[in-house]
This record gives sequence, structure tokens and C-alpha cells, in this order.
Amino acid sequence: MNYGRFASYEEFLNELTLFHGKPAPGGVLALHMVNMAWEVFPKDVLMDVICETRKCLADTIQLLTPCTVGNHWLKIVDTGRFAGVFYDKQTGEGVRISLSMERLKLWPRVEEWYLKLIPKHEQSLQAILDEINEAGADLFDMVEVTVEPEVLKVRPKTPPVFCPICGEAYPPDHGPICRGCAGLTDSYYRSRTPAAVGAER
Amino acid sequence: MNYGRFASYEEFLNELTLFHGKPAPGGVLALHMVNMAWEVFPKDVLMDVICETRKCLADTIQLLTPCTVGNHWLKIVDTGRFAGVFYDKQTGEGVRISLSMERLKLWPRVEEWYLKLIPKHEQSLQAILDEINEAGADLFDMVEVTVEPEVLKVRPKTPPVFCPICGEAYPPDHGPICRGCAGLTDSYYRSRTPAAVGAER
Ligand SMILES: [Zn+2]
Ligand SMILES: [Zn+2]
Repeated sequence: MNYGRFASYEEFLNELTLFHGKPAPGGVLALHMVNMAWEVFPKDVLMDVICETRKCLADTIQLLTPCTVGNHWLKIVDTGRFAGVFYDKQTGEGVRISLSMERLKLWPRVEEWYLKLIPKHEQSLQAILDEINEAGADLFDMVEVTVEPEVLKVRPKTPPVFCPICGEAYPPDHGPICRGCAGLTDSYYRSRTPAAVGAER
Repeated sequence: MNYGRFASYEEFLNELTLFHGKPAPGGVLALHMVNMAWEVFPKDVLMDVICETRKCLADTIQLLTPCTVGNHWLKIVDTGRFAGVFYDKQTGEGVRISLSMERLKLWPRVEEWYLKLIPKHEQSLQAILDEINEAGADLFDMVEVTVEPEVLKVRPKTPPVFCPICGEAYPPDHGPICRGCAGLTDSYYRSRTPAAVGAER
């Protein structure tokens, strides 16, 4: 078992608690997924990741691998499934590792937790973590996949442009106005002040 | 200046380098944004964040605050702008802090870097970081905002259901089949093997 930049399981679990907010079973499941992926690739291959859920899996990937949301080496494609695609960023070839519903049946503590079969207060976090660590790779399916060429595209390092509506800078490939002003993103806030505080200073 | 769970600027910068891959100027810009937000909220308020870019800003928020992509307290709404909305998760009231294009003109090293005005090899990382730390809050606009009620909704803790197509578990509010099988997410991989490796074992 490899813990990335952490010296031991305990150190990893401690950092998961600090970063994610708690020693979540999903974060420990993810430790085994990342280890399965590391065994597939030679050490000199640069591995990127697509995470299929915005859950603890994403946080463990960020802690253990060089891939984060902010450096674009981790991408989220939210299918809601506990799965990740680990691939060679040069060739796009890799593996998809997913929690197996068939295999879960063999590990009752993990199954009760993941499928929420019994109330949370009747579950023992330690028993769940212990069973995850005993099961390891046995909990997962792995298939060989090739990532879509679109995913492998490196974004051009073009200078940002100014949005004629909001005046802020944005990537020119987003179009003639920024995505916020174009209404292309989810609506997420309303202003409570008529003018910018900064502009008023 | 506050560095969250890090003891000093140097310790923060070291962790940013480990986590994000390099001591990116955007990550240090974000340090000042987070500090501006911390000054707005009383210590006992639980602050959630919406980040408007998938860049270094997102990584600094994850390092300095309890909010991560995996615990859902950090959300990404990718308008492509260097901005973040920091809000009280109970009331939805907060501030939007954004890099000001007007103020950027007063800080030439930061402007050259952010707007890519001169080639990267002619820029000095240390000079950019020094100017960011000298400018601090002066580089930003801040407006009071209220986050949309939709954003504040707490996801129900319902048990996952099995997708009749792929057999994997997913959140029931996603619909009768998972988003991956429904084609609701971006296409991101093709299988290279007919059956799951796990199933063949
Ligand atoms: Zn705009
Ligand atoms: Zn499915």
C-alpha cells in the first residue's frame, strides 16, 4: 500500500480528517482505488483522473495524487457513481475503477454504510474502515478504457479578455461575453448593493 | 493575515506547492481573498464558498478553509472569472470578491502576469508574489450578495439506488437511470474491454 506524500495510513487518515472534515469511509475506499490505479501505470507515466462523484473520492484523489480541481489534472464528471477513470494524460489510455455492487454483498459493514441499510448511529466507523482495509481491491471492478480525445485537449495559454458587460477578465474561448453575463452557468447569487464596494472606495 | 491551519506564509506556500504542484501566483492572490472574507464573517459563522474558476483559486480555498469539492462546502460555478462568493451557509448572505481590472493597472507585475502581457520567461515569480502580498486587498472588488436558495439546499441523505443499465449505485434524485447511462454528463471514455475485469476474475 502506498500513501502518496504521506508516510503511513495514520498520516493519510489524519490529513483526510483535516482536509475533508472527517475520516470518511469513502475517502478510505478511494485510497484503495488510487492504489489499484498506481499498480496499472509505470512510475514515469503522468496519470490524470476523472472522478464521477463530488464526494470524498474527489478529496482523496486530491490528497494522494498530484491531481487537483485547481490544476485541472482532476476533472469531475458527476454521474453520481462511486467510480474514477485513471488515465495516461499522453495517450488517454487507462482504467475505470468502480465500487462493485456484487462484491459489496461480501462485505456487510461496508454494504450497510454505503447503501445506508441501517441507521448511522448503529454503524461503527472503525468497523467500516477495518472492513474496507481488509477488502481492499476486492470491492472494485476495473475495466480498461480510453478517454475521449476532447478530455485530453490542453487548454490554450491565451491571455484573458475583458467582458464588455461585467468588466472582468475571462478566457476568450468562452465567447464574446463571459459565461456569467451570458447566463451559461447556474444562477448562484444576487447583489445586495447597487455598486461594487471596491468601485465606491 | 491568517493562514488557516498553517502556521505561517511559508508553510502555506509550501503546502500550496505540494498540493497544487507549484507556488502559483493565483494561489497567493486567493490567500488575500480568503482573508478578506474571514474579516467579513464572525468566527462562529459557517462559511461556504462558490468559486468561479477551476484554477489555483479553488485549490487555495480547499487548503485554507474547511470547504472542499468532496465535502460540497466548495462549489464551482465556472464563469471563468477570478472571483469567489463567500457566504453564511445558514442565511445565504455573503460577499463576492473579484480581481479588479481597474486596480490591476496599479500593480504592474501582477497585471503582466495575469493578463499575460509579457512572455512568461521575462516574468519573475518572486516579484509577482511580492507585489501580490504588498497589494493584498487593494487588488479586489467586494460586493454584498445573497446566494440563490437553490444553492443552500442540503442534499437529502437518501440511500442510493441501483441503475438498471450499468448496475452501479447512484442518488435516486438523479432519475430512473444514472446520469452516465442517461447521457446527461459529458462523454468522457470508451471501454477497451468487452467485460469488466472484475467480473472476469
Ligand atoms: Zn461578464
Ligand atoms: Zn447507469
